[in-house]
Amino acid sequence: MNRSQKVWQDIQEVREKKPLIHNITNYVVMNNTANALLAIGASPVMAHAIEELDEMVKMASALVINIGTLDNQLISSMYEALNAARDYETPVILDPVGAGATKLRTKTVGHLLNKYKPAIICGNGSEIIAMAGSTYTTRGVDSLSSSDDAVEAGQKIAKRFDTTVIISGKIDYIINAEKTIKVLNGVEMMGRITGMGCTASALAGAFVGVNDSAFDAALGTMVTLGIAGEIGAEDAKGPGSLQMYILDALYNLDQKAIQGKIRVE
Amino acid sequence: MNRSQKVWQDIQEVREKKPLIHNITNYVVMNNTANALLAIGASPVMAHAIEELDEMVKMASALVINIGTLDNQLISSMYEALNAARDYETPVILDPVGAGATKLRTKTVGHLLNKYKPAIICGNGSEIIAMAGSTYTTRGVDSLSSSDDAVEAGQKIAKRFDTTVIISGKIDYIINAEKTIKVLNGVEMMGRITGMGCTASALAGAFVGVNDSAFDAALGTMVTLGIAGEIGAEDAKGPGSLQMYILDALYNLDQKAIQGKIRVE
Amino acid sequence: MNRSQKVWQDIQEVREKKPLIHNITNYVVMNNTANALLAIGASPVMAHAIEELDEMVKMASALVINIGTLDNQLISSMYEALNAARDYETPVILDPVGAGATKLRTKTVGHLLNKYKPAIICGNGSEIIAMAGSTYTTRGVDSLSSSDDAVEAGQKIAKRFDTTVIISGKIDYIINAEKTIKVLNGVEMMGRITGMGCTASALAGAFVGVNDSAFDAALGTMVTLGIAGEIGAEDAKGPGSLQMYILDALYNLDQKAIQGKIRVE
Repeated sequence: MNRSQKVWQDIQEVREKKPLIHNITNYVVMNNTANALLAIGASPVMAHAIEELDEMVKMASALVINIGTLDNQLISSMYEALNAARDYETPVILDPVGAGATKLRTKTVGHLLNKYKPAIICGNGSEIIAMAGSTYTTRGVDSLSSSDDAVEAGQKIAKRFDTTVIISGKIDYIINAEKTIKVLNGVEMMGRITGMGCTASALAGAFVGVNDSAFDAALGTMVTLGIAGEIGAEDAKGPGSLQMYILDALYNLDQKAIQGKIRVE
Repeated sequence: MNRSQKVWQDIQEVREKKPLIHNITNYVVMNNTANALLAIGASPVMAHAIEELDEMVKMASALVINIGTLDNQLISSMYEALNAARDYETPVILDPVGAGATKLRTKTVGHLLNKYKPAIICGNGSEIIAMAGSTYTTRGVDSLSSSDDAVEAGQKIAKRFDTTVIISGKIDYIINAEKTIKVLNGVEMMGRITGMGCTASALAGAFVGVNDSAFDAALGTMVTLGIAGEIGAEDAKGPGSLQMYILDALYNLDQKAIQGKIRVE
Repeated sequence: MNRSQKVWQDIQEVREKKPLIHNITNYVVMNNTANALLAIGASPVMAHAIEELDEMVKMASALVINIGTLDNQLISSMYEALNAARDYETPVILDPVGAGATKLRTKTVGHLLNKYKPAIICGNGSEIIAMAGSTYTTRGVDSLSSSDDAVEAGQKIAKRFDTTVIISGKIDYIINAEKTIKVLNGVEMMGRITGMGCTASALAGAFVGVNDSAFDAALGTMVTLGIAGEIGAEDAKGPGSLQMYILDALYNLDQKAIQGKIRVE
């Protein structure tokens, strides 16, 4: 089975199994990430009350932790959910939004990474660099660099924590301890939509939910979102309509689109 | 006055009176439910600070309580708002998102139902079954079954608590102590938009705000949203554009559309 | 340089400098205001954890404080951020959503105004009247009156606090201690999109971030958003599509559109 066949098989499995994806995410993107999960065929849940996290995570096929609008209460919820995920062996996606921008974010991500073992870490270049312990400073949450430094940092993290790293950017990198693959799909205007990276990490939950390999899930995620972006851009007149058409494209994706458009190196 | 005339009259009254609808709802859907209320002609308020709830609810024509992303703080706000609603005789819509999925949700909904008297309860099949005290287990928040079991559960709740129950799903059921009516409007793709049920419960606030009969308000809500979904689906290419076109359709609804499209049994 | 040239220069500077705009805003509009900032070319951050506000505000070109869904925790975050803004001389935009509707809102806004010195206050007529200490009662958060009373109240605030006041409405007023200018751009349907005023105050952050004059920034904001609304309305079929096309229009704005459409008196 080649790459495009594998991605297509994953999408079909998501549509059939409708995996329940539990998200503790930021307030900015909740609507869009829930809609992206529904569009691809998964079943999103957003819940953060300490009292119910054990039950929710128990039912879920994946847990997505996104620190975009973190505070002490949400951090407590994240720990509770991560404990449940460890108990039930639920795969975890970690989106380190803004790591490097503030001590709170860098420290929180460091703690999570040391204590738990995410299946996939999905961030932009500067966040991944910050996670690798560099002194590189993130500029806000939209820094999209994915330089050689970022790839090196991603490889360091992947090896040290035995995980898969997605570096999102103009070129996306999928990295584990053994290999680094580039995904060239996507369009530049996606960077002008808030929370596109958060949509990637949410979708990674869906792909991990039907996949034995976190690496394959990460690759499938970025190929799928990138192709949805390319299809959406055909009709979009700007980032407003692109955000909408990406949801339509996720819903309508077929094997021909995946096969014809996949660009992986 | 027949059913379509009554629905049309309600829509006109919402547009003229612009009833203020106070929502304590979940973070995922706030933007969309506020926009749906504005599109139909109502005036939404989202506020949850304990200190201001009495004043806000006093001004409001209806109070919508949605437990989608509940936590202890929001639950306290809900109680405060419900106390005010009782004092000012403001009609209450209760959306029991995820009831049955976790003990916290089932318990919270049970307390609210026993202590206060919602005019309308608006949930999907599994939520209504859970509220009726069944051991049936909800799978996340998107379970859309509206089986015979759900209708029976809805009838039980309607009688016991003297309220109107909306069961949303492929077929919507409007139930009170005396009767059960089916609304066949809507399209399947609405189930792939996050918070469509939450939009229904928000709109129910607008219809209750101009209506003496909670049953008529509930029926008008589901006919209106269902028809807006059908009109939206004519142009939509997927759930992203459908979400948008439903707002446009709510704004543009006219008597001819209601009359020509209403499907009630 | 005439007015339209100045507005166009500001837009170009936002696109080039991508100023980081820090927002403590309400849950209803976060996605849209972040997208509006990205569409115009700025870089939005939404963060409210006390622990990181000093670092975030230090990096930011402007701080936008919007009290739409305030509570005690968010109010503490606002104070913390405002203290940082004072330390780093970061210009502040204050959006007094619902001032006058509840004591909590009126009081909070009063405290902020007395203790800090916003560069721009951006509200609707009834909010500005409430801020001026009138007994006028706001009806919810969507009251859009911009009567003579509101202008008088705005002038009173502008003089007393040496600030620039935006009164948004069918006609927008830009007011400082010396002058009052009307912006006639915009379309009525914008009032049927939730958070259009919040989008204005967020964009004001971007314009202040590249501008020495708060008055020019305020004027540029309302001209830009108004023109984006007019362009969006050409394709929009209702408030749902208008919300989207405004983002597209903000992204695509060119000098010709600004020059041809600006209506200022």
